[in-house]
Amino acid sequence: MIRRPRLLFSAFNEFVLSHHDHGLWAYPESRQPELNSVDYWVNLARLLERGRFDLFFFADVLAPYDIYRGNRDAALRSGMQSPVNDPAVLIPILAYVTQNLGFALTENILQEPPYTFARKISTMDHLSRGRIAWNIVTSFLPGAGRNLGHAGLPSHEERYGRAEDYVAAVYKLWEASWEDDAVLCDRIAQHYADPRKVHEINHHGPYYDVIGPHLTEPSPQRTPLLFQAAASSVGVQFAGRHAEILFTSFNRTMAPQSIARLRAAAVEAGRRSDQVKIFAGFSFVMGSTEQEARQLARELSDRQSLESILTKFSGFWNFDLSRFDLNDTVAEILNGDVAAAAGLPPIARQALSAAPEKSWSFERFARWMAAQHVVGTPESIAEEITAWQDAGVDGLNIYYQVSPRTYEDFVNELTPRLTARGIMQDSYTSGTLRHKIFGNGPFLPPEHPARKARQVAFGTS
Amino acid sequence: MIRRPRLLFSAFNEFVLSHHDHGLWAYPESRQPELNSVDYWVNLARLLERGRFDLFFFADVLAPYDIYRGNRDAALRSGMQSPVNDPAVLIPILAYVTQNLGFALTENILQEPPYTFARKISTMDHLSRGRIAWNIVTSFLPGAGRNLGHAGLPSHEERYGRAEDYVAAVYKLWEASWEDDAVLCDRIAQHYADPRKVHEINHHGPYYDVIGPHLTEPSPQRTPLLFQAAASSVGVQFAGRHAEILFTSFNRTMAPQSIARLRAAAVEAGRRSDQVKIFAGFSFVMGSTEQEARQLARELSDRQSLESILTKFSGFWNFDLSRFDLNDTVAEILNGDVAAAAGLPPIARQALSAAPEKSWSFERFARWMAAQHVVGTPESIAEEITAWQDAGVDGLNIYYQVSPRTYEDFVNELTPRLTARGIMQDSYTSGTLRHKIFGNGPFLPPEHPARKARQVAFGTS
Repeated sequence: MIRRPRLLFSAFNEFVLSHHDHGLWAYPESRQPELNSVDYWVNLARLLERGRFDLFFFADVLAPYDIYRGNRDAALRSGMQSPVNDPAVLIPILAYVTQNLGFALTENILQEPPYTFARKISTMDHLSRGRIAWNIVTSFLPGAGRNLGHAGLPSHEERYGRAEDYVAAVYKLWEASWEDDAVLCDRIAQHYADPRKVHEINHHGPYYDVIGPHLTEPSPQRTPLLFQAAASSVGVQFAGRHAEILFTSFNRTMAPQSIARLRAAAVEAGRRSDQVKIFAGFSFVMGSTEQEARQLARELSDRQSLESILTKFSGFWNFDLSRFDLNDTVAEILNGDVAAAAGLPPIARQALSAAPEKSWSFERFARWMAAQHVVGTPESIAEEITAWQDAGVDGLNIYYQVSPRTYEDFVNELTPRLTARGIMQDSYTSGTLRHKIFGNGPFLPPEHPARKARQVAFGTS
Repeated sequence: MIRRPRLLFSAFNEFVLSHHDHGLWAYPESRQPELNSVDYWVNLARLLERGRFDLFFFADVLAPYDIYRGNRDAALRSGMQSPVNDPAVLIPILAYVTQNLGFALTENILQEPPYTFARKISTMDHLSRGRIAWNIVTSFLPGAGRNLGHAGLPSHEERYGRAEDYVAAVYKLWEASWEDDAVLCDRIAQHYADPRKVHEINHHGPYYDVIGPHLTEPSPQRTPLLFQAAASSVGVQFAGRHAEILFTSFNRTMAPQSIARLRAAAVEAGRRSDQVKIFAGFSFVMGSTEQEARQLARELSDRQSLESILTKFSGFWNFDLSRFDLNDTVAEILNGDVAAAAGLPPIARQALSAAPEKSWSFERFARWMAAQHVVGTPESIAEEITAWQDAGVDGLNIYYQVSPRTYEDFVNELTPRLTARGIMQDSYTSGTLRHKIFGNGPFLPPEHPARKARQVAFGTS
């Protein structure tokens, strides 16, 4: 019998009222309106650690969604990823109240200079004893760019050129500035560091000049665990070069193909295919019987806010869905019978094509699309997760419908069942987040460009 | 009998090994080498709260000191404010483990865009329930500027022009974007915010364009409590316009004049003189007898690292003190008998002139200058603090010699004595940091430019 490796589990979240729940913050038992209270998040982190989650993932956006109806009113009103607080303020606290849970911070490379960003991450890695991941983001909503001093959204290629330059600079700060034995902490000689072993990085790239040295001494992981979500082909190349955890399709049938493509991109970049882990998104609604589950799923779907759904997908597709009449059918839209469908981007067309009935109204389609959950009993959901493992993913990013209820259901019902199946860890491995996930020590492997920067600087692996 | 207002107390610190202790991190009982461990700082914050300190103040630098000998070797070797971690990562944790202590974050206006900085501060203010202060810094070491994408140090005037623009932008985000009743959190209607009450700020200044709206909803204080250290005349004007807490001289004889100047600057800017609090620095060495105190002071002074002292003052004065021979006398330097003294800046000349004996060697002078402590018993130090109050200061920023020992001495010996004298609070006031200090609610007074921005936007006070 082939022993399958366990799956990794991440709680997919954002420091917001409402992430992908489409208005279910208003569900009576939701505690999401406590978003500004530290206790809500502390309890959630402790719950996840009790359930042996590997990661607490924080997405981020730097502007309200404003494509739907051409303004941000719907996002503000429905609370769809608005307001959005700074996850870098919350994560240090959550790391303090936990021992093993990892934390992924999303930060856009256009958000702050690499020099101070690198210090922030190193500090987080120090204080959490090596449990920090960085989700590298290169894109943003146009509104964010204007607010950050960028005239508009740079071209796709320029964004990745800038991203390559940015990560090259932070890699050098993390890996190629302070040697491993630079810190002496010699109380007799009153020497804290050996200046001969603390180096300038002298990074001069097309976008960034960073001299160094790095302001902090080496943290447990040096470079944080690296996440990236790759969609475009340029994005996949970038992810293949840099990411240790990548996101793939939400669709299980398409997963094997997508996984193969992502692993190939890593190999293409000179890395080993087992040096990347692939995560899929996973959303569920649980009942103690199938009937109870279906009933709850229906109730939740009915309670979702259509405004929130349309606001989010308008943003995702960069297409104002208010142009459709809610009674337009999917067939009419796809056939071009609706004038507003002109300019509908391929990704939206693909989503519409997946509708089970082309005679559905646009409203019914939108509500269906927003409720793509696995619905069932703890046992059937565990079975579904097992099927994801068979499809070749390494981990699942767990969406919530109502928080903390979704995660309570997971921890109380799924954690024991998945552990019994050998799919979930029965205890945490000691060591840094990277070691917990890859089992090979705290640092990146020598094939990774960050470690290559170190080899160039120090002549060591 | 005139009842004097109590004094405010702040612990002057930095997220470093060694702040102003000049190498005493190496003193046997110092725990400063635990700088990367969260427990060291958590214990310190809890100690300060037990001792009813008002504030835990975090200074910051963004490059190692590199004037002494023209390089950064001495700073790295002696650990003088190097390495330096990110205080914005630590403060959220310390706020989580305390209930009443305030926290001052130093952040340079050249460090990150106003849009994301404002979000960071609002998030910290939310999670700490209104206990955050911002120490506005407009200057930096040249090495920091190069690393942050600024070619060199901008001129003094340009820096303050930029600072005015920066604070104008963040004020509008904090005060003039979300109205007080913008958040509805209406679960029935599924309306979180009223978009008509969330405004763009449309800030277009000479340096920054920020459209808004602010990403987070109003935090308890909206604008954090504002600190500024003002030295130059442009600096005093800036501080007079903006700061609620200002720093004055370390020298008690000069304090009244300096205090009058700072209060006048606030009045000049249209504010009331009681809307600013003036803090002086205070450093002490305590023994159970005068003799024991003197003996400890001598021991600490002997153990200070001369390299650390010269590195720091070379940086402060922007003058390489390695140009002097350690045996040059103060008189020789002041008289110009030492060629290296050419170009000695006035501030350094003033410090040398204050030497008790002009026949002292430069080394003796430097060690004396680094050991300007009040030395005595708990009773005599309490007396000295009372004298500071008589000199008209509102608060003291307490330096440490050896941490946490200095603060343990304060909390165990001085807190009870100062409380008995009515000079220190006997319990914390409830409410936000600003309310604890000014007793007038969570927000800035209407005379402050941040609240004026709000009046312009909303037509309310």
